[in-house]
Amino acid sequence: MKTTAIDRLINEIAKLPGVGPRSARRLALNLLRAREQRIPSLVAALSHALETVKTCNICGSLDESDPCSICSNDARDTGAILVVEDVADVWAMERSRAFNGRYHVLGGTLSAIDGRGPDALRIEELLNRTQAPTCKEVILALSATMAGQTTAHYVAERLTALSHNEDGSLKNGSGPATTITRLAQGIPMGGELDYMDDGTLGAALSARVAY
Amino acid sequence: MKTTAIDRLINEIAKLPGVGPRSARRLALNLLRAREQRIPSLVAALSHALETVKTCNICGSLDESDPCSICSNDARDTGAILVVEDVADVWAMERSRAFNGRYHVLGGTLSAIDGRGPDALRIEELLNRTQAPTCKEVILALSATMAGQTTAHYVAERLTALSHNEDGSLKNGSGPATTITRLAQGIPMGGELDYMDDGTLGAALSARVAY
Repeated sequence: MKTTAIDRLINEIAKLPGVGPRSARRLALNLLRAREQRIPSLVAALSHALETVKTCNICGSLDESDPCSICSNDARDTGAILVVEDVADVWAMERSRAFNGRYHVLGGTLSAIDGRGPDALRIEELLNRTQAPTCKEVILALSATMAGQTTAHYVAERLTALSHNEDGSLKNGSGPATTITRLAQGIPMGGELDYMDDGTLGAALSARVAY
Repeated sequence: MKTTAIDRLINEIAKLPGVGPRSARRLALNLLRAREQRIPSLVAALSHALETVKTCNICGSLDESDPCSICSNDARDTGAILVVEDVADVWAMERSRAFNGRYHVLGGTLSAIDGRGPDALRIEELLNRTQAPTCKEVILALSATMAGQTTAHYVAERLTALSHNEDGSLKNGSGPATTITRLAQGIPMGGELDYMDDGTLGAALSARVAY
């Protein structure tokens, strides 16, 4: 029979995303079976992370220092800020080694259903960063989903409004406008045409490039 | 960029069964986002479980006491021992409230591939328990898989050999032989015939009962 300590552990594990009651029981049991070996090392890793991990004040990413190792790395280009939804996207981009600029983590997407408006995202912080004279380009690297693209559109409008009058002319006294770009849409590497949805095929066709 | 504390946490989480590198990153990030709230309660639950959870010397289940609350509960029938592979099966059986006897956790199934022979399972302990005069029935509740049924067959043979001579007669001096039973096989509750495999349909047909 399960007792309070086991139930408590299962309940804690079930708070993790995508872990239902059944998975939580399986994970708890796996930890409990070799508990003398497994639990101390997991507890140590959790405690170490809690002590050392900080949220970077500049980009909103997670690291052991604040500012994070990317924001404080002079070898990285300060001219380009790549805007992502989440810290996981920073990690994915870093794994690709395709980008050598700075990041800005919004912390999610706009969502009317979840009641997440512009104030819940780190948009003001992004606008402030783009005012720096070094900033030449803002790359909107949000998900190609409805929520991601809505958010990208909103951020792009706010960025444009910073340096332009309502009639579209450049504001007096503002420096050269920051270029706003987004990731290309198309067929992913290794993708078979037959498996692509209509939206992807349409986007890839209209963005076709010279061979 | 990920740092050692974050990597270490991801590696620890990835040791859990069914959690790949991608899921581990997602789970770690989920914990780190609200780390001040989430990590202390998870650490407390893990530490509490490590301190209090014990393996029951009699049945092999997990509980906060040894013997466990089932083995030490006089209200439960000592005449029937239900043999299961794993602690999770004890929990499943207890949730069903269908059984009021004692359990015996084997700790897995026989597996030539994984090098798990009879000595790796708690079979000797089961044989000893069945020698008690109170023990009337051993219910083999192992999975209806090849591994589960092979193990059930082996356990049944060992139990029979305890009280019978090689010619099948009862040994002199041994008490009345323990009845060995297994769970019924058939259509699960809510099961649609169309979705049942041939083995299940065959087993359900040959075990048909009067209406």
